[in-house]
Formats: sequence, C-alpha cells, structure tokens
Amino acid sequence: MQTNLPLSPARLWDSLMEMAKIGGTAKGGSNRQTLTDLDAHGRRMLQAWGEAAGLTLTTDRMGTMLLTRPGRDPARKAVAIGSHLDTQPTGGKFDGVLGVLAGLEVMRALQEAGVETEAPIVLVNWTNEEGARFSPPMMASGVAMGLLDEAAMLATTDTADAVFGEELRRIGWQGEADPAALREFGAYFELHIEQGTVLEREGLSIGVVTHALCQEWLDVTVTGTESHAGASMQGRRDALVPAAMLVAAVEAIALAHGGRGTVGRLTLSPDSRNITPSEVRLTVDLRADDAETLGRMVTALRERAAELTSSRGVEIAVENFWTSPLVPFDPVLTARVRDAAAARGLPHRDMAAGIGHDAVYVARRLPAALIFTPCVGGISHNEAEAITPEWAAAGVQVLADAVLATAGVVR
Amino acid sequence: MQTNLPLSPARLWDSLMEMAKIGGTAKGGSNRQTLTDLDAHGRRMLQAWGEAAGLTLTTDRMGTMLLTRPGRDPARKAVAIGSHLDTQPTGGKFDGVLGVLAGLEVMRALQEAGVETEAPIVLVNWTNEEGARFSPPMMASGVAMGLLDEAAMLATTDTADAVFGEELRRIGWQGEADPAALREFGAYFELHIEQGTVLEREGLSIGVVTHALCQEWLDVTVTGTESHAGASMQGRRDALVPAAMLVAAVEAIALAHGGRGTVGRLTLSPDSRNITPSEVRLTVDLRADDAETLGRMVTALRERAAELTSSRGVEIAVENFWTSPLVPFDPVLTARVRDAAAARGLPHRDMAAGIGHDAVYVARRLPAALIFTPCVGGISHNEAEAITPEWAAAGVQVLADAVLATAGVVR
Repeated sequence: MQTNLPLSPARLWDSLMEMAKIGGTAKGGSNRQTLTDLDAHGRRMLQAWGEAAGLTLTTDRMGTMLLTRPGRDPARKAVAIGSHLDTQPTGGKFDGVLGVLAGLEVMRALQEAGVETEAPIVLVNWTNEEGARFSPPMMASGVAMGLLDEAAMLATTDTADAVFGEELRRIGWQGEADPAALREFGAYFELHIEQGTVLEREGLSIGVVTHALCQEWLDVTVTGTESHAGASMQGRRDALVPAAMLVAAVEAIALAHGGRGTVGRLTLSPDSRNITPSEVRLTVDLRADDAETLGRMVTALRERAAELTSSRGVEIAVENFWTSPLVPFDPVLTARVRDAAAARGLPHRDMAAGIGHDAVYVARRLPAALIFTPCVGGISHNEAEAITPEWAAAGVQVLADAVLATAGVVR
Repeated sequence: MQTNLPLSPARLWDSLMEMAKIGGTAKGGSNRQTLTDLDAHGRRMLQAWGEAAGLTLTTDRMGTMLLTRPGRDPARKAVAIGSHLDTQPTGGKFDGVLGVLAGLEVMRALQEAGVETEAPIVLVNWTNEEGARFSPPMMASGVAMGLLDEAAMLATTDTADAVFGEELRRIGWQGEADPAALREFGAYFELHIEQGTVLEREGLSIGVVTHALCQEWLDVTVTGTESHAGASMQGRRDALVPAAMLVAAVEAIALAHGGRGTVGRLTLSPDSRNITPSEVRLTVDLRADDAETLGRMVTALRERAAELTSSRGVEIAVENFWTSPLVPFDPVLTARVRDAAAARGLPHRDMAAGIGHDAVYVARRLPAALIFTPCVGGISHNEAEAITPEWAAAGVQVLADAVLATAGVVR
C-alpha cells in the first residue's frame, strides 16, 4: 500500500538552489571541492537542515555525514539514502547534490507527516565522491565498504601537497565513527542524474539501474621513429598514424559489441610541428554489460594493435591500468524502484550505469539500488549541468516510495 | 677543365670529429645550440682553422661568420660556401657542420695548392639555422636575404626569456657588417646531409637538389562535446575520433598525390581518461613538388574535414598557419653540381629538398645550389645521426669542383 508523503518538490528545488550558492560560479555552476572551506560550509548547511528535521548527526573518520531518523524496531537494520555534496572544480548544481537533498526532502516529509518507520533511515553525505581534488574518487564509500584502505586514503595529497586527513581535520569534519559500521546498513538507495542522454532522448523521467558496467582501462604506447616532415613518405615509422587508427578502432569495437569505448588522453613525443612523432601514448576506457563482452572487446583491440604492428612497422604495447567488475544492483530493491515508477505513472526503463557512483561501491557489499533522472543534453561535470523541476519531483517521489517500501511504515 | 685540388677527406673527417667534441653528448651527438658558450667555442675553433688557412674573418650584425679568400678580379662577385655549426639540443655531428667544414676543406686545399681564383670565395657560418633555441629557424640567412626583419629577430627570446641580440653580444659574436651585404654574393653553394633515406636506399652518394618543395602548414581545430566515458555511444560528439580520421587522411592524401603529409602535434581538451575530448587541435604539414599539387592536397584535406563535419556532427576549422613557395635552385649552378658528380663517377640523382635550409632562403634572392649526401637511415636531429667517410669525401669533391667552376681558376 502506497504511503503518500507530503513531499514538496518546490522545497527540494529551493534547497538545491540554496546549496548551489555555496561555491556558486559566474556561469551558474558550483565549485565546492571536497575538504575546502566551501565544502565545510555546505556540510554545515546540511547539518542545520537535517537537525531542523529532527535528524541526529554522526560523522565517521572519513568525514562521511550520517543524519539518522530512528525507527520503531531497534532490531531492524537501517535503510540508507545517500549521495555527495562535493563537486568538480567547474561542477554543476545537481551531480550528487540532488541525491542528498532528495533524501533530505524525504526526511522532511516524514517529519512533517509524523510518519514512523519500522527501520531507521539514515541520510548519507559521502566524502570525496568526485576525486577531483584527492584521487581516487568515491573515496569514503570505498573505505566504508572495505574496498579502499582507510590509512592510505587519509594520506593522499592534492596537487598543492595538502594531506587528505589533515584537511579533513582542518575543516572540522573528521568524526569518530568507524567507516566499517556503514556495512551494517540493511539497504541503500541513491538518486542521481543520469549524466547521459538516454532518458531525455526517450522522454523518460526515471532510469531503473540494474547494474554498473564492467570496465577495463588500458594504457597503450605506440613506438615508431622520428622523421622530418620534409622526408619522403617511404620508410617512415610515424607513431601517430597507427595510434589514430587505434582511436578509430576503439569506437568501432565499442559499437560492434554494444559496449562503450573512449580514448580520453593522447600525448605525442616529440610534439613538434614538422617531426613525425616517435612515441604516442593513449588511454583506452572500455565498458560493457558483461565480462565476456568486455573480454571480447579487449581481444579485438589487441588484435587490431597486432595488425598495425606488422603492417606499419611500429611497436605497440597494450597494458592493463585498472579493471572494475560488473556490479549488479539488488533485484528486490531495484524492483521496488521499478514498481514505484509504474505505480506513479512515471515513464521509466531499465538501464545500466556506465559511470562510477558511491552506490556502485555500496552494491558490492550490501543490497543497493540506484535511480536515475534525466539531465539536459547529458551534460555533467560542467557548470551548464541542468535538470527540470519535474524531473527532480519524479526522482524524489520514486526514491520516497522505494525507501518506505523497504523501511516499512508503522503509521 | 677539372682542377684537382689536394682535398683531404681524412682532414675533413678529423675536423668533423674535433668540432663534435664541443658540446659532445654521451650518446655521440652534439648539443651546441645557437648563442650558447659552446656555440662561441665552436665559432672560435672555426675562426682559428680559417685564419690558419689564410682566410679573413668578418662578422655581421646577426653573428654570421664570413671567412674570405680573395680572388684575382676585384670586380667579380664572391662565390660563397655556407651552412651552419649550431645544432639541435640532441643534435648530431653532421647536420650543417658537414657543409661548413667541407667548405673549410676546400679553402685549405686551395691554400695548400696555392690556387688563385678569379672571384673571391667566402665561407659562411650562418647563425641560428636550427631554430631550436630561438625561433624561427634559418634566422640569419632570412635576415641577410631580406626575408626576415633584423630588429624583430634580434628581439626574439628563448624559453628562459634570454634575448637573441643580448645573447649574441654576451658570447662576443655580434659584428658590424650589414647582413644585407650578403645579397651581393655572385653564387652560393651548400653541402648538406639529406636527412632522408632516398640516396642511401638507392645506393647513391650525391643528390643534386633542383628545388625546395612548396609547403602549407595548417592548424586544425575539431570541436565536439564532452561526454563521460560511461555514457552511451549514441549521441556522442567526441572530437578525437574525427581528428584521428584526419590524421589518417593526411597520410593518405600525401601518398595519393606523391607529396608529404605530417601531423606532428595534437592536443586534447579536457585530456581526462574517462571523458571524450571536446576539442582537439592538430597541426598539418603538407609539402609537394609544385604549387598545383599542394593546392589539390589542401583541397582534399578540406573536403575530408567537411565530410567529417557533417557525418560526425562536429565543427572543424582548418586555418593556414604558414606557407612557403616552391623555390627552384639556379639551373646553371645545379648543372655544375650534376656535371661534377658525373665527371667524378659518383652515382647521383636529381631530387627535391623537403626540408628548410639556409640555401633555400638564399635561393630566393641569389643563384644558389644545394648538394645532398646520404645519412644512415635518414636519421637526423638526433644524436645517432651518422654518415660514412666515403659520403663526406664524395660531397667535398663535388662541392670543390662546382665552386671552382663558378669562381674560375687563374692558376
């Protein structure tokens, strides 16, 4: 039976706009990078809003904020709603922030309606999801789920040699809670903008994320010989032309296998206008819906590299840089998301997440669900990031319904 | 009638090895960049050798060294032999140096044999041919021929903000002669390594250079949209894939037109492993044997860019950066080179120069000839640059014969 919480899409929108002012940029985005004074400012605002809604704050050693609303049954594991308030240097208003503030709106509506749930509900603001200032991304959720080492993460430095742990203490947000305690959540929900164009193109307002793609990141080095640009074409061993052919191959392989393929970095040496490059390094990012397909894509790329090695007389090294397994989301929680969208008459589809999220780390340890809403033109990690108030309203409704179906409503 | 000078290939080789020690590198090359203390050291050595051979030094305001041997007839314009002693940062022993020291060997042999010529003969060491430290290359010959502005060139700076004119004075090599006076040479000869593989592959020891290729340098900018590497392949406007297709097109167009095509620089923005580039900038260097072919190559590239613009939904701007006309060498002087090679039984061929040389600037104002000798594997601008003593001997012989045929032998 559906519980109709008095959700206020207008209040959610106002909170999004209010939060965006902290680190707000001239082009309408936000620069609220992790562990900056602006991050601390945003955290204090969330704390104030949460406490006004009757929530209790605890903070863990990674700085992750937990705002708890108690449940009736002390034996029931908590249902968590989470995402992140940190942004890219030229980030938008919605990436991460929508998920946190939609969770806040659920809490506010529960409070306002005096709804009691069986299980406690916890609103989570993960530290350093973006990884823009301190690498790797999704740092606090990775530590909480035991996938990243806490001490190593606290010791990471930014480009100005500031240390993560010291910055966390400097801004006053290192708590005492053990991050490992977050593995005790009974369920985890995250609402996030799609950062792609599928939902908008298909006129849908909800994406039911069934799994995160598996990924293989490769480093490719093509080695040839420098020639002067005035030298004859015969006998050249230009490293760039075969590298360019590999760039085209990455796209063709992704399309042929229904996966995704991207060359995002490419550097030349010696990088001179009238010398053929003797060395080209490029990165390849391959993603697929299953490990077998991903394996075939990697094989196809290696085969193309081998062909170019022999046809062009260059050397090509293809090395693994990072691998991420296929991560399925919990079928029961995912079904609750799908059912909620259907019951509310919101057009939706099942889809994969191509991009990392805190929910992907959480899903490796706990039952978790990820809900997508559209964003304009798929634009994200960009000050121009935009959504409509209607999309936000659809997202918070489905989030609330799925959370309540999981936490259980007493009255 | 052939004059048989007592040329000493062994002495030439010894001088090459001696000069290479100044700025000699661990890998067997030379780092004697223009206007460094090492450049000054090399210049002093050439001065000492020249004066020992009875030559008189004058230096112009660009630092170009002129070592003169008088002729019998004061009314005859001088015959010049030139090249450069400056090197790339990781340069070889022969690029430029061979031409200067072969000229010195001709002077030494004339002196030793007591041969008097009708016209004076001048050995020229041009300042800053390489352009590695101060850009543009071929700076002093460009100024001397009125193709570059003297004041502007003296004001150029290196990456450490050192000023060309100040460095020239600091090392003590700014003279008082007017560079424009060099336009009064009656003829100019330059011997240079080919920096290509044609002569070596065909087993020839002399290249008779008939012309310098015409060149068109272009700047290409491909503009698309950033997408996350996890986003669907549909709807992407990746700037790198069409840029890579243009790289392949540059090679294909060069091969189809019998010209030369090189992409030497390519930079991505934002240059992140998991984001499709939204902007790619690349340089294109096209060269051909005639202006019409070059024009067709540029048109073919623009057509390919237009195809990619419409098929891939990106914007592609193709802009001219620099153009160099076809430069023919003087047919009379070139014939003397060809005749000398034939008379000495040295295997030779006519060929084009694909690369800039001081002789190319000189040939735009004066009768000039350029003589190529092979280098191993076409490798140049590289510490591994190598030639054989036999090739050097062939080069100095043809140079001497052509110079004497032009200067006229009195006795």
